Amino acid sequence: MRNGVLARRAGAELLGTAFLLAAVVGSGIMAEKLANGAAAMALLCNTLPVAGILYVMITVLGPVSGAHFNPAVTFAFAWRGETSWVDAVWYWIAQIAGGILGVLLAHVMFDLEVLQVSSTARGGVGQIVSEAVATFGLVLTILAVVRSKPAAVPACVGLYILAAYWFTASTSFANPAVTIARAFTETFAGIHPAGVPAFIAVQFVGAALGVLAAGWFAPVDARGQAAAE
Amino acid sequence: MRNGVLARRAGAELLGTAFLLAAVVGSGIMAEKLANGAAAMALLCNTLPVAGILYVMITVLGPVSGAHFNPAVTFAFAWRGETSWVDAVWYWIAQIAGGILGVLLAHVMFDLEVLQVSSTARGGVGQIVSEAVATFGLVLTILAVVRSKPAAVPACVGLYILAAYWFTASTSFANPAVTIARAFTETFAGIHPAGVPAFIAVQFVGAALGVLAAGWFAPVDARGQAAAE
Amino acid sequence: MRNGVLARRAGAELLGTAFLLAAVVGSGIMAEKLANGAAAMALLCNTLPVAGILYVMITVLGPVSGAHFNPAVTFAFAWRGETSWVDAVWYWIAQIAGGILGVLLAHVMFDLEVLQVSSTARGGVGQIVSEAVATFGLVLTILAVVRSKPAAVPACVGLYILAAYWFTASTSFANPAVTIARAFTETFAGIHPAGVPAFIAVQFVGAALGVLAAGWFAPVDARGQAAAE
Amino acid sequence: MRNGVLARRAGAELLGTAFLLAAVVGSGIMAEKLANGAAAMALLCNTLPVAGILYVMITVLGPVSGAHFNPAVTFAFAWRGETSWVDAVWYWIAQIAGGILGVLLAHVMFDLEVLQVSSTARGGVGQIVSEAVATFGLVLTILAVVRSKPAAVPACVGLYILAAYWFTASTSFANPAVTIARAFTETFAGIHPAGVPAFIAVQFVGAALGVLAAGWFAPVDARGQAAAE
Repeated sequence: MRNGVLARRAGAELLGTAFLLAAVVGSGIMAEKLANGAAAMALLCNTLPVAGILYVMITVLGPVSGAHFNPAVTFAFAWRGETSWVDAVWYWIAQIAGGILGVLLAHVMFDLEVLQVSSTARGGVGQIVSEAVATFGLVLTILAVVRSKPAAVPACVGLYILAAYWFTASTSFANPAVTIARAFTETFAGIHPAGVPAFIAVQFVGAALGVLAAGWFAPVDARGQAAAE
Repeated sequence: MRNGVLARRAGAELLGTAFLLAAVVGSGIMAEKLANGAAAMALLCNTLPVAGILYVMITVLGPVSGAHFNPAVTFAFAWRGETSWVDAVWYWIAQIAGGILGVLLAHVMFDLEVLQVSSTARGGVGQIVSEAVATFGLVLTILAVVRSKPAAVPACVGLYILAAYWFTASTSFANPAVTIARAFTETFAGIHPAGVPAFIAVQFVGAALGVLAAGWFAPVDARGQAAAE
Repeated sequence: MRNGVLARRAGAELLGTAFLLAAVVGSGIMAEKLANGAAAMALLCNTLPVAGILYVMITVLGPVSGAHFNPAVTFAFAWRGETSWVDAVWYWIAQIAGGILGVLLAHVMFDLEVLQVSSTARGGVGQIVSEAVATFGLVLTILAVVRSKPAAVPACVGLYILAAYWFTASTSFANPAVTIARAFTETFAGIHPAGVPAFIAVQFVGAALGVLAAGWFAPVDARGQAAAE
Repeated sequence: MRNGVLARRAGAELLGTAFLLAAVVGSGIMAEKLANGAAAMALLCNTLPVAGILYVMITVLGPVSGAHFNPAVTFAFAWRGETSWVDAVWYWIAQIAGGILGVLLAHVMFDLEVLQVSSTARGGVGQIVSEAVATFGLVLTILAVVRSKPAAVPACVGLYILAAYWFTASTSFANPAVTIARAFTETFAGIHPAGVPAFIAVQFVGAALGVLAAGWFAPVDARGQAAAE
């Protein structure tokens, strides 16, 4: 019993320190890769608004739908029995449709061709691993914080994505609806359709690992120990 | 009944994912457009202080007046019967006067000519759509969060504007008093007076749509479901 | 009675919108002035850590001393009778000594000459007005939020200074201890000693105006109306 | 009695103002040192994700293990008797293993050689003092805020590290596990193994001073005075 608790606590220290170092080293690598100034600035100016809108929209729409905005997150809640599979299917349809709509709207706002297809190749071992890691961390974060400190979910999701944009080689799509929608833009954020299936597959793998990790850490959570103890 | 609730929940997933993708793709387009370094940096250094001061001033003055600072927001509250129309008129006058005063003060602080008129043309289909979208999202955000989580209003408004600066083609004025006041400066933030009426008109259209959307989502809010459920 | 309340509410809308526009236009002017890239980046990389450390140190030391860190703020609390004048004198000594100590420590950490004097001229009408405006807003913010929402003081002070760095021509010293201490560094943040007295004088003027404004808005605060109403 | 309290309060004003000025002047020096654009941008894009992931992982894993992620922090809690020394040893092992794992994972995600050793020399008086100051402030922050306002720990740690990255000459490792792990990467964040022992030694010195300072300030904390009073 005692040993199980200690293993869980040591596991938490290991996992948290691993994410910390992945962020320290990974974001340094990414920043250096983009060191020709404009590219790093473009990614920074892409990161902050995305983190901001996630905070806002999760706060605004969380009371209505739970604010998943992500088929992998809906899958995680459905697996845990917290969303019915019927609802999950409707959520998936709405998320994919909403994502594509958002891309078309961005094109209209910037006076660009409305219908586009991306030619930006994304893939390879590093990026595939990146998507699994990014989605694992996102799902673990959401499941853990929904339970222990629900008011912190909007900030945690926004800041997690802000960080993951920089510490993963793929800039963390971490979301099948986002991945599909981004195939429909020949701009900065695009992804060639050929790269989509592999991204989505590993996103679900990452989400499944996130559900398992959240379940392993849960017994300690459930005691309601204070966040800082 | 059940179907109505599910439609509302799926609608929330669609809308939230649409805003997420508009931010992902729109801010990428904006960042690339400004890719010659200094322009993106200037917009970033314009965005962060504005988001910051919104958080501060809404916290400071919210207990006094509600901290609208925006005729379109006052219009939304008046339409819903939460502000009287007489008060609304006085708010509008104060907001427009305050906005112009702030511009003149900025000129004094930077030792510039106090009275200026902008020559920066702003308009076109993309920017007009941008202003409608930006004001729609702002009003929906305020109305929803005032009801479900009032302590989060300052952060939501600040971060919404931070995001909308980047994901709209107009850098999101989203505020008739701001639009009028910015006609009085021949600096970075200016707008030629000829562009003002169209901006204001679509801002009120966006605000009206925001009121309708908030009303549609409200019945679920009203049950007081937790933000993360 | 009713008219007095409406005047106060309209005054809040006017003041808040004025600060919003000062931030929109002022930070745009500052960003353009520094448009040669490195200067704007340097100021940004100066702004974010300062805002961050203010949030942290106010949270850490607020329960001990109130976390003024600023003789103008201590003056405001003493004027309102919330700090004794004897304590205020000790606070002033500690703040000035701490400020100078911090500057020397920075020099040691960066392997620079420990004792330095700045040769960076700062002054002129615009910067003098800037310091009055910046300190006025800071003191009003602290006095209002201490009363209505004390948990938000660290975030409000951090974000206020972040914004004021950009929307004032002086980069907002807004603090006599900071002004004195910055005379002791011949680096980015320095100020020639000849510029110090005028800065400090208008900072106290701004603080006094902030106390008066906080007193005018206070009666409404005192009713405990919700932040968003 | 009264004099002791006043000394403690004046001491808090001195310490807080010292950190404020160290941040104002230190981050200005750092920003100017990196003024050739890309270097400052790289550090900024390293800072924000690290601060973000700290906020997230402390929120996620705090309820499980306390979310130390740092042998110097675990040492501080063990010294105060809030963590057993047996647990502390397991925490240290987990933190060091997790840190190295995170570095290897970053290499995999960016398709780099998995095993690397850094050749980036770090050391000298300024950097050694920097590490002591940085760890002192971090440990004081955590111990004080865990007691007075535990919900603010994630934000305080994230923002403290964001600030310390800029106001110290070493970019604030402030963590023995991070220091060891960063020896294993020949990228932006690396440190030559020869520099590791001195960094770790002064980190523990800083942590010990942080424990003493937290103990000195604690009696006032313990009365539960409001943060802004």
